[in-house]
Amino acid sequence: MIITLKRDVCRSVFELVVGRVKKLGYEPHISRGKDFTVVGMIGEGADKWKESFESMEGVEHVSAIQKPYKLASREFKKEDSIVEIGDDIKIGSKKVYIMAGPCSIESREMVLKIAKAVKEGGATILRGGGFKPRSSPYTFQGLGEKGLKYMREASEEFEIPTISEAMTVEQVELVGKYCDIIQIGARNIQNYDLLKAAGKQKKPVLLKRGMSTTIKELLLSAEYVLSQGNYNVILCERGIRTFEDSTRFTLDLNAVPVLKKLSHLPVILDPSHGTGVREYVSAMARACVAVGADGLIIEVHNCPEEALSDGPQCLLPDQFKSMVKELDVIAKAIGRYIL
Amino acid sequence: MIITLKRDVCRSVFELVVGRVKKLGYEPHISRGKDFTVVGMIGEGADKWKESFESMEGVEHVSAIQKPYKLASREFKKEDSIVEIGDDIKIGSKKVYIMAGPCSIESREMVLKIAKAVKEGGATILRGGGFKPRSSPYTFQGLGEKGLKYMREASEEFEIPTISEAMTVEQVELVGKYCDIIQIGARNIQNYDLLKAAGKQKKPVLLKRGMSTTIKELLLSAEYVLSQGNYNVILCERGIRTFEDSTRFTLDLNAVPVLKKLSHLPVILDPSHGTGVREYVSAMARACVAVGADGLIIEVHNCPEEALSDGPQCLLPDQFKSMVKELDVIAKAIGRYIL
Amino acid sequence: MIITLKRDVCRSVFELVVGRVKKLGYEPHISRGKDFTVVGMIGEGADKWKESFESMEGVEHVSAIQKPYKLASREFKKEDSIVEIGDDIKIGSKKVYIMAGPCSIESREMVLKIAKAVKEGGATILRGGGFKPRSSPYTFQGLGEKGLKYMREASEEFEIPTISEAMTVEQVELVGKYCDIIQIGARNIQNYDLLKAAGKQKKPVLLKRGMSTTIKELLLSAEYVLSQGNYNVILCERGIRTFEDSTRFTLDLNAVPVLKKLSHLPVILDPSHGTGVREYVSAMARACVAVGADGLIIEVHNCPEEALSDGPQCLLPDQFKSMVKELDVIAKAIGRYIL
Amino acid sequence: MIITLKRDVCRSVFELVVGRVKKLGYEPHISRGKDFTVVGMIGEGADKWKESFESMEGVEHVSAIQKPYKLASREFKKEDSIVEIGDDIKIGSKKVYIMAGPCSIESREMVLKIAKAVKEGGATILRGGGFKPRSSPYTFQGLGEKGLKYMREASEEFEIPTISEAMTVEQVELVGKYCDIIQIGARNIQNYDLLKAAGKQKKPVLLKRGMSTTIKELLLSAEYVLSQGNYNVILCERGIRTFEDSTRFTLDLNAVPVLKKLSHLPVILDPSHGTGVREYVSAMARACVAVGADGLIIEVHNCPEEALSDGPQCLLPDQFKSMVKELDVIAKAIGRYIL
Repeated sequence: MIITLKRDVCRSVFELVVGRVKKLGYEPHISRGKDFTVVGMIGEGADKWKESFESMEGVEHVSAIQKPYKLASREFKKEDSIVEIGDDIKIGSKKVYIMAGPCSIESREMVLKIAKAVKEGGATILRGGGFKPRSSPYTFQGLGEKGLKYMREASEEFEIPTISEAMTVEQVELVGKYCDIIQIGARNIQNYDLLKAAGKQKKPVLLKRGMSTTIKELLLSAEYVLSQGNYNVILCERGIRTFEDSTRFTLDLNAVPVLKKLSHLPVILDPSHGTGVREYVSAMARACVAVGADGLIIEVHNCPEEALSDGPQCLLPDQFKSMVKELDVIAKAIGRYIL
Repeated sequence: MIITLKRDVCRSVFELVVGRVKKLGYEPHISRGKDFTVVGMIGEGADKWKESFESMEGVEHVSAIQKPYKLASREFKKEDSIVEIGDDIKIGSKKVYIMAGPCSIESREMVLKIAKAVKEGGATILRGGGFKPRSSPYTFQGLGEKGLKYMREASEEFEIPTISEAMTVEQVELVGKYCDIIQIGARNIQNYDLLKAAGKQKKPVLLKRGMSTTIKELLLSAEYVLSQGNYNVILCERGIRTFEDSTRFTLDLNAVPVLKKLSHLPVILDPSHGTGVREYVSAMARACVAVGADGLIIEVHNCPEEALSDGPQCLLPDQFKSMVKELDVIAKAIGRYIL
Repeated sequence: MIITLKRDVCRSVFELVVGRVKKLGYEPHISRGKDFTVVGMIGEGADKWKESFESMEGVEHVSAIQKPYKLASREFKKEDSIVEIGDDIKIGSKKVYIMAGPCSIESREMVLKIAKAVKEGGATILRGGGFKPRSSPYTFQGLGEKGLKYMREASEEFEIPTISEAMTVEQVELVGKYCDIIQIGARNIQNYDLLKAAGKQKKPVLLKRGMSTTIKELLLSAEYVLSQGNYNVILCERGIRTFEDSTRFTLDLNAVPVLKKLSHLPVILDPSHGTGVREYVSAMARACVAVGADGLIIEVHNCPEEALSDGPQCLLPDQFKSMVKELDVIAKAIGRYIL
Repeated sequence: MIITLKRDVCRSVFELVVGRVKKLGYEPHISRGKDFTVVGMIGEGADKWKESFESMEGVEHVSAIQKPYKLASREFKKEDSIVEIGDDIKIGSKKVYIMAGPCSIESREMVLKIAKAVKEGGATILRGGGFKPRSSPYTFQGLGEKGLKYMREASEEFEIPTISEAMTVEQVELVGKYCDIIQIGARNIQNYDLLKAAGKQKKPVLLKRGMSTTIKELLLSAEYVLSQGNYNVILCERGIRTFEDSTRFTLDLNAVPVLKKLSHLPVILDPSHGTGVREYVSAMARACVAVGADGLIIEVHNCPEEALSDGPQCLLPDQFKSMVKELDVIAKAIGRYIL
């Protein structure tokens, strides 16, 4: 931690700061310029005192030099983590995984029909929501456990593992009972009790970055899950909120190389939410594969205008199938594969 | 709802759209220009079909004309709502209420000391956290119920009602047991189960806008609480996330006249979180009163450098006291009062 | 400047960095922790090598400790700067100045009529555009020099100084010929040749912060003007671009205490552009005075629906007059005055 | 244009609005619901009255239905535009063009050395700045015309056309004299006199989106150039300003499919500025090619730590060369090519 003192700070303030550093058990490293005095406080745990020194009169600025997360960091684990589901699925390996399905499960027939279509189209994991976070209390809130049961049925019939969102601590157990991956949604990325609950069970967890979550905060949220003992964490970028309004969100592809540098966890991208517009999904999906995503999550619906949520961004099954073929060619161009 | 069709759309698409409008029970209002065709679908509930029409091929754009929230809207209730606590406190009236206290409750002694100081300084409500949402799992997470008990003791000793945050459904009951107002924090503004739980009990609820929540979404979150039968909702703006990094957040004062126009609910501002820097709090608090806030929420600590959270933005008790005196003069200049 | 080396950096990289610091004429201050090595390079001009050290392999992070602007900084000049116009106007003094008038000058009659109204309403400076930056090439672009002449006539008839925008180097001279303050608009805040031209003449310059300009960048733009010898610079915050769309921009009031801390230059606020909506202007203007603005700039039009630009945010003359009376009361509450 | 009236608006206001629509020469299309009245005003030029109707009392909302740009729109020209330079370069065709070189031209030797390296590495156009927009007046401002002469020399020696930035009207002519493409930088995207000057000459113009320019505004700025008669316009996305601070900007790849839908103009991406960090450039460049960019602009420097600007984001010549080979494989995977 580097503490910069204000210009012309008096001797007593300087001694207060230095005394405090010593009292906390660190050796102060003092550097003086004509205009500035800088006090270094370096060693295990030093950075946790950052706010405390910032609160002192006479301190201009304090900068941390350690990362605030540990288990999620590349320093903690040099090689890429791989999240396994069953014998075949190894997210974070050379294979790029496609998770696809409807936004919300609307009926048994519908999920069976779409599951069949996305499996045929190249998806390796079925997505679908039983519990839906909706900004309005007056819109469709999901079929709940019934939806998860339909999803399980589709999973067994078409031999495709599933992912679904849990919005509460109780739903973590419920989703874990029926599905193979538990999704924590963007709106809950800083719902810490939910993160801890996801960390206390063993099913893989997909963490969606919030619409204004920094990458540092995303890794800290992952740390909540990891620190409870569940190391099967997948990160997911799904679009951030910016001033641009021609798309629903701005999909932040920069996040992929940044996360790959800072962390060992697999990274998935969501071009459906990241654009919010059907006709932009395929182009962005190509970019997602090229930038190095370990997987994609895509909304597919057989009749978007009758979808109870997110219709405008759903691909039709045929569009999905031809997109996946294109993506496979790009994956192979960078030494990976989808199909 | 206004449906604009794409240029040069073929006859059959036009008929599909118009047919759909009729099938849903509305009369289509058709306007044709040289280049555009617009179909109006006006009446109760029309706007809920927005996404559905957006999902149709041939549709360029759909704009809603009704507001998606009802109970929170100024149309639903013309006069300002007043949230009452005990006999004396009427938030939303001419009096501007000051909620003050530490970020988190660190000990019994500390909360008693600060409660005394803020009461003397002009605060009418004591704030303090028992449960703390912290972005890192390795920082102080609050004293929990023990903290709430200390707070209750301070409340009784100094005759000052209290506000504290609930982060889970269970904590809603717990905070309600010890405190007078239940705060839903910025990170939980779209935690819908929590909102519903807050709506199912009777204590007043203070809803903090998330760091990237639009005003429309804030009112929709309020609607979740209201629609469960609890009408004692207070809105709170506490800073939004922008590109500017000289302050921790950008306090959005525009939100006050906008919310006052759109809604009847009282509006509180949080200049402590909204700036994140002690020396900016007083100036912004003056602006908050002048713009028409019904109250302020301010962090005060007797020893900021030893605070376990948010030290850099805490006022000292003396700074708080002199600030409130200044604020009272401004309140009186606009026909309101604090002291 | 503080250079943090990557973990486990090899000895030769460390020596390369330290050698470079010495070669540039500074003494390296080395601090070593278990995990990190930090090299301090402190002294006049050190920070200008920031990017250069960031470009070196093995360097994790470099943080500057000096401010990149000088003449604009509070360190350079402790007391508040006052910009004088004629004998009476002293912007930055206890009096808060109101600049008011139409967005663009549309005719001689119009500017005379509005000049009379705003003068009577309490304005001390007349605003109005001869040259207009319009995002579309197909909208009204201003009357040009003819407009400035009308403005000069109004200025003389009603004894009120004027401010108008210059968009090019040539217009700096032209606006300076007819008006008392030259405005550099938000879109030109990083048009450096224009800034230099404004710095090479003597008329006061009002610099409007761009819609995504950081406060640091605003002060650097001011530095361009100051460094050419013109010290009569007024800063103006007019709303920044954020995700919120219920207002045209988000007026950043935090900027006032931040600028007052970092700089000695007067600060003006523009609630008309900062909200973009007539009915929000008065509330925000009150907040602007309370937060400590040295002046306001307000759009007034006698017939907003016939305005050729910015009609929706213009106040009517009567609204303006009653607003200024209210603002004067708030100004007096904080020891300043308007009327 | 669709005009929505406020609820419970009185008869006289309704008649005022309808009368105004008629007076402007349009036929009003009136739709009435229980709660709302909507007036459609459709036809050539209707949308230019948007602000005027918004300014009227009793009007709740006005939405435009035509696009405010014409010549830049896909409606105006269905097929993709191709910008030609000499006989060989056809930007917007199947070939993806790589523009590469230093941020600023620092010396004759340097530009010759880098020109050779980027040509060998697969670049088809040499980039480099003679005039540099720098946020601080105290940093290197470019060699000016001398730099352009060195660039011309490099261009002739290595048979590679060039692009360089013009910051003023005079520089448009100067850059046009020495270079093949004139760049308008992000900071000047709404410098309308500069845009007009670029439109009045014949050399191709590359327009860089500003850091907070919406896509609509970018197309309006292009319209300024096009409307002067120069149809050789290339759009460039180079990163927008968001809250995320782990990269210098957020490269908005969504912009590519959006621009391709709305406009016929070629689109180039700048992953160097869009990330600001050398080690992220290659991954993002791959995404840029995959999403459908017609070209890339990349900063390359043979000694980044001695670069006078932008060193941290420059690739070394070897890194550049191996990146272009990778990009070519991706280009071929989507039916295009680079080498």
